[in-house]
Amino acid sequence: MTTLPETFFRAGQRASDALRPVRLTPDFVATAEGSVLIEMGQTRVLCNATVEQGVPSWMRNSGRGWVTAEYGMLPRATLTRTARESERGKVGGRTHEIQRLIGRSLRAAVDMQALGERTVILDCDVLQADGGTRTAAITGACAALALALNRMLATGALKKQPLRQMVAAVSVGIVQDTVLLDLAYEEDSQADVDMNVVMTESGALVEVQATAEREAFPRARMNAMMDFAEQGIRQLFEAQRRMLEEAAAR
Amino acid sequence: MTTLPETFFRAGQRASDALRPVRLTPDFVATAEGSVLIEMGQTRVLCNATVEQGVPSWMRNSGRGWVTAEYGMLPRATLTRTARESERGKVGGRTHEIQRLIGRSLRAAVDMQALGERTVILDCDVLQADGGTRTAAITGACAALALALNRMLATGALKKQPLRQMVAAVSVGIVQDTVLLDLAYEEDSQADVDMNVVMTESGALVEVQATAEREAFPRARMNAMMDFAEQGIRQLFEAQRRMLEEAAAR
Amino acid sequence: MTTLPETFFRAGQRASDALRPVRLTPDFVATAEGSVLIEMGQTRVLCNATVEQGVPSWMRNSGRGWVTAEYGMLPRATLTRTARESERGKVGGRTHEIQRLIGRSLRAAVDMQALGERTVILDCDVLQADGGTRTAAITGACAALALALNRMLATGALKKQPLRQMVAAVSVGIVQDTVLLDLAYEEDSQADVDMNVVMTESGALVEVQATAEREAFPRARMNAMMDFAEQGIRQLFEAQRRMLEEAAAR
Amino acid sequence: MTTLPETFFRAGQRASDALRPVRLTPDFVATAEGSVLIEMGQTRVLCNATVEQGVPSWMRNSGRGWVTAEYGMLPRATLTRTARESERGKVGGRTHEIQRLIGRSLRAAVDMQALGERTVILDCDVLQADGGTRTAAITGACAALALALNRMLATGALKKQPLRQMVAAVSVGIVQDTVLLDLAYEEDSQADVDMNVVMTESGALVEVQATAEREAFPRARMNAMMDFAEQGIRQLFEAQRRMLEEAAAR
Amino acid sequence: MTTLPETFFRAGQRASDALRPVRLTPDFVATAEGSVLIEMGQTRVLCNATVEQGVPSWMRNSGRGWVTAEYGMLPRATLTRTARESERGKVGGRTHEIQRLIGRSLRAAVDMQALGERTVILDCDVLQADGGTRTAAITGACAALALALNRMLATGALKKQPLRQMVAAVSVGIVQDTVLLDLAYEEDSQADVDMNVVMTESGALVEVQATAEREAFPRARMNAMMDFAEQGIRQLFEAQRRMLEEAAAR
Amino acid sequence: MTTLPETFFRAGQRASDALRPVRLTPDFVATAEGSVLIEMGQTRVLCNATVEQGVPSWMRNSGRGWVTAEYGMLPRATLTRTARESERGKVGGRTHEIQRLIGRSLRAAVDMQALGERTVILDCDVLQADGGTRTAAITGACAALALALNRMLATGALKKQPLRQMVAAVSVGIVQDTVLLDLAYEEDSQADVDMNVVMTESGALVEVQATAEREAFPRARMNAMMDFAEQGIRQLFEAQRRMLEEAAAR
Repeated sequence: MTTLPETFFRAGQRASDALRPVRLTPDFVATAEGSVLIEMGQTRVLCNATVEQGVPSWMRNSGRGWVTAEYGMLPRATLTRTARESERGKVGGRTHEIQRLIGRSLRAAVDMQALGERTVILDCDVLQADGGTRTAAITGACAALALALNRMLATGALKKQPLRQMVAAVSVGIVQDTVLLDLAYEEDSQADVDMNVVMTESGALVEVQATAEREAFPRARMNAMMDFAEQGIRQLFEAQRRMLEEAAAR
Repeated sequence: MTTLPETFFRAGQRASDALRPVRLTPDFVATAEGSVLIEMGQTRVLCNATVEQGVPSWMRNSGRGWVTAEYGMLPRATLTRTARESERGKVGGRTHEIQRLIGRSLRAAVDMQALGERTVILDCDVLQADGGTRTAAITGACAALALALNRMLATGALKKQPLRQMVAAVSVGIVQDTVLLDLAYEEDSQADVDMNVVMTESGALVEVQATAEREAFPRARMNAMMDFAEQGIRQLFEAQRRMLEEAAAR
Repeated sequence: MTTLPETFFRAGQRASDALRPVRLTPDFVATAEGSVLIEMGQTRVLCNATVEQGVPSWMRNSGRGWVTAEYGMLPRATLTRTARESERGKVGGRTHEIQRLIGRSLRAAVDMQALGERTVILDCDVLQADGGTRTAAITGACAALALALNRMLATGALKKQPLRQMVAAVSVGIVQDTVLLDLAYEEDSQADVDMNVVMTESGALVEVQATAEREAFPRARMNAMMDFAEQGIRQLFEAQRRMLEEAAAR
Repeated sequence: MTTLPETFFRAGQRASDALRPVRLTPDFVATAEGSVLIEMGQTRVLCNATVEQGVPSWMRNSGRGWVTAEYGMLPRATLTRTARESERGKVGGRTHEIQRLIGRSLRAAVDMQALGERTVILDCDVLQADGGTRTAAITGACAALALALNRMLATGALKKQPLRQMVAAVSVGIVQDTVLLDLAYEEDSQADVDMNVVMTESGALVEVQATAEREAFPRARMNAMMDFAEQGIRQLFEAQRRMLEEAAAR
Repeated sequence: MTTLPETFFRAGQRASDALRPVRLTPDFVATAEGSVLIEMGQTRVLCNATVEQGVPSWMRNSGRGWVTAEYGMLPRATLTRTARESERGKVGGRTHEIQRLIGRSLRAAVDMQALGERTVILDCDVLQADGGTRTAAITGACAALALALNRMLATGALKKQPLRQMVAAVSVGIVQDTVLLDLAYEEDSQADVDMNVVMTESGALVEVQATAEREAFPRARMNAMMDFAEQGIRQLFEAQRRMLEEAAAR
Repeated sequence: MTTLPETFFRAGQRASDALRPVRLTPDFVATAEGSVLIEMGQTRVLCNATVEQGVPSWMRNSGRGWVTAEYGMLPRATLTRTARESERGKVGGRTHEIQRLIGRSLRAAVDMQALGERTVILDCDVLQADGGTRTAAITGACAALALALNRMLATGALKKQPLRQMVAAVSVGIVQDTVLLDLAYEEDSQADVDMNVVMTESGALVEVQATAEREAFPRARMNAMMDFAEQGIRQLFEAQRRMLEEAAAR
């Protein structure tokens, strides 16, 4: 574990409240109903939306839909190779925790009545990992979901837009007593506190997860982190909007 | 799913900011190094602390200890029987998420250097479930951990107390636009927002997880929920302290 | 492994043909149809009966019911922690053997025609283990089953009592050439022969399992062990009866 | 399920206390240290003994050996195909129960000190199943073990015979109120009581398992079944002895 | 690994283009619809055909049948014991590869329309392994399949023979620059190239798999290996035919 | 399943002996020692090489290295979503077959003595699947392996190039009696015969797998397919060489 220099500068002179460069590429694969590659700096997550007829058995005949997510990491997304969960024969705790977070976040964005008895699966696969993969997955998955649903509206497969509003997410942390937005891996591994925030376009909170990795923290710090998160997420909504407009214009 | 009456009263006339009756029974089993049965109303969780020599391989020769948790639910802790995870051959996502939360929360309470190369496993098994099992597990597990470590100090197996301070946890939620402390199952299934807060005795935050189950929520509501949580947790610290004093007095 | 003293005295001056103190607590959990905590000395097993509509597919439309059992041990039921079977991803051979024994024993007590197409699952979870957990589980599970079925008769859900007669079980062994009733863990680990006997109230045998752990044994010894078992089991029927009367009186 | 005729005759006019034709073929495979195909009527079990250096970790440096067994059934050993346990990804309860019984029975026959730190694995694979596969496996496995150990004595790999005495096993049951020795599948499926007995050459008991499949049974019946078992097992010792003599003569 | 002598002679003076002694025993078990034990020298594989009503869900209502295979090896088929896949909880890569090869080869021999909506499962279990088990399994499985289908035709259960033609298979390899037919284990472990060829009676190819174990090989060598394979397989068809005639004559 | 038109034209007027457009992108991820994205038309496979110290236990102290491969498919690489093998808890037969093929092919290219006691793992993950993923994986994995080893030579971590020569692979098939090179998914699903050929730069064969999907085929056809494969693979070596030169020039 590298020790940060006493005076701490972020890579590339990034300001403490600045996002890494964000890029959303629509239709990264041609096979999915909605496909977006999201890049936050070196972090790259491929988010694919699948829309299937039918819902899990416990929801049948409710007239309502379901949204769920799966998260995976390619073995060499990381600097040292991570063994495949398929080879180990089970999905690990970290994966479970992350895909449950993504699923909950996206469900908060969708009108299940308007979706009807369909299941949307959001596959988020990390091609390269440099911190913040779960929040990037949420932002990218919502964009992939929007692509898929917009097309279903365009073809008439859906009558009403089930996406009530976009959601996006970012991480914030405290490193050496400084609040930092959108932590890269190196920063994350030095953080005393790590927080993930998921918001809607209207500024309401969908999910807040703050964890003291090393030091418990006062409420005042949590508020400061929330401020950083809010302004970062606003930029992510901007990036989603631009991508969707470009995709619609094609 | 039952619909709550229009004017909403909590079971037993409980006030919106009141905990359910809390009881911590030390030494519920005689076989563990530290054992506590925690009851929050009808919720009953057996928390047992195991102290083993040695640490996972990636920590060896660091001179530091490790704290981890496992969470389980007896099949009939719930009104309709839940299949055993051992029979299904794998640990589910909910279980993974909860035991990771318990583990992180407890690690924040422990000075790993003072613990030395030992592993503490906190087994939290739900005997009866009526909402709030994960927060009860944290409060009970910290008490069981304290019992175990106090005894090791008393026998000289430990030189220095590794428990830096107690942690405790509670849930808060929003039901029918009302903030409620310590949700029972019936209330939880009606909640628009569900939040779990883990704090230290000094009032610092260890973990905050707020989730919009139905409706995204503004920051103001989150602050109100935090206020409820803080005062509830203070009572839990009181209950832990009384139990530890009684156990010491025997 | 401790060596027994040359002249062998049982803990607490227990006579060779004496049971440990037996206690059956009805309704230990409020969530199950029938719930009994059975204690045989330090051994404590929570037995919960679940009655579900329907039977396994191979029995459908037979008009007959099914009774099955599952057995588990909490990690700290034992002095050194036992890993969870859910974490190891499979149910072990010992668990399989025990839960098959419990299931067979209970099925012998039930009139499947009178039960109708219902499945009863008896969950036997060991909270604290000091030998004889499988026989305690049988005695406790039959009591939990009786509680559940009595209530169904009382509410009219059942027309006819499906429980033909109670069953109960005890272990007997040979330690240092002496026949001992109801072995505690310490005794069991010294035994040359270990036998489990399951009987009905009318004194008929349901299951006999005798195993030479160290030394093969002559039929005469087996007969002596059977005599001990019979008189021990009669006391267990007494304990079951008292508990059921008290539960009915409430 | 076929109903037996009112007056019950066994297939081939077999007397109630008669074994089916028994055949033990040594060296059925050339690859194992000891290999025996045992046939009891239509039941055919291939028993192979493997002797490996070393013992499980919990026995290391004890100077003592270990004996264990594994049991399997080829998919078409049965009239309707049974799915492979490897495909289902886990060993079932019945298999666990049987291989534990075989292992315990064989361990009772072996002087672990004389075996030294070696592990013997007895693989019992059913090629064709017509009832009594577990008892046939015990009788055949002991013969395969004897073959393997005799050869190790002959080559000097062992100084002292670890096999203290032979063990053999047979089933007995009660069908239509009649005690029958060595049940075939058709008889077993009609049995009210089913018993497996494992004995040593000196007539001592190693394992007795009696189960009321339909009706609990009085001790008098158990004694009658034991008598049948004893005389049946004596014939099996004869068959083992003949096979070993022939194998030694080659 | 043994090194072959400089001048290489095959065991038993076998010529480079000679098969090992081939034997097919029909009805090795009485329980299967078609059963053949195939022996190629010391290699012995039990091939059992099961015919079940119905097809996998993705084929339903197609009017067509399905043929599949499973392959297993008894633990002591090999000189050093191989752990059971059921104990390891998963089917290994080698097993998967082999059973897929067998299944594909047999499907090529069957008219699925004539089979109708039935599934044939070919269980190939190796009792003793001395090289060439997968090709022996194909040759034996086709014979077992023919036995089963011939009987169904004889009883009128089938109207039309679904077996279009027999298939058989053999291995060929290059050892010390010499092409050798039907490699035994010892030869196989020295081979630079290993090839498996599956053919129909009419001489057409069903499957060719050639692998450079040590040295890549020119096309000319592949042609030489194909020549050896063709003449070897013709002898296998002869053996299948003789066995089927004898079985029919009984 | 679409039926091909009577006169068969390939997509984009591709000639029967033409490859689809081939593209190899080096360093697609920055985290792996060697990383190549290979595209053959719409088929896109990410091939990452990991070089680890040490070898599997059965090779230790041999002074030789080991090369292995793992193959995966993202859920939406296909037009209808494929369930994750990690969720199903086991690696399927097709995956096993493919990764064993890739591993064998690459091992044939490497001088294990020169590699020393290192393990190279080639992760081949399909981002988009349109037929020929296993052969694309071999061609891409060899390029990723070359990138990794060249860098180790450049830094002096290796003294001698372990890559003896490049390997590459292509598929050929027979569709409507016409030999076609490099089948796309649509063509593959119509093919009567499907063949995969792996070759070295010197034109020697590493692996040949020909399978009759519908019709057994004569040797003459196999020869014609081999001719197509040879000329296709020569173009793939060209593409590998260009990519390696460009990567070296940077």
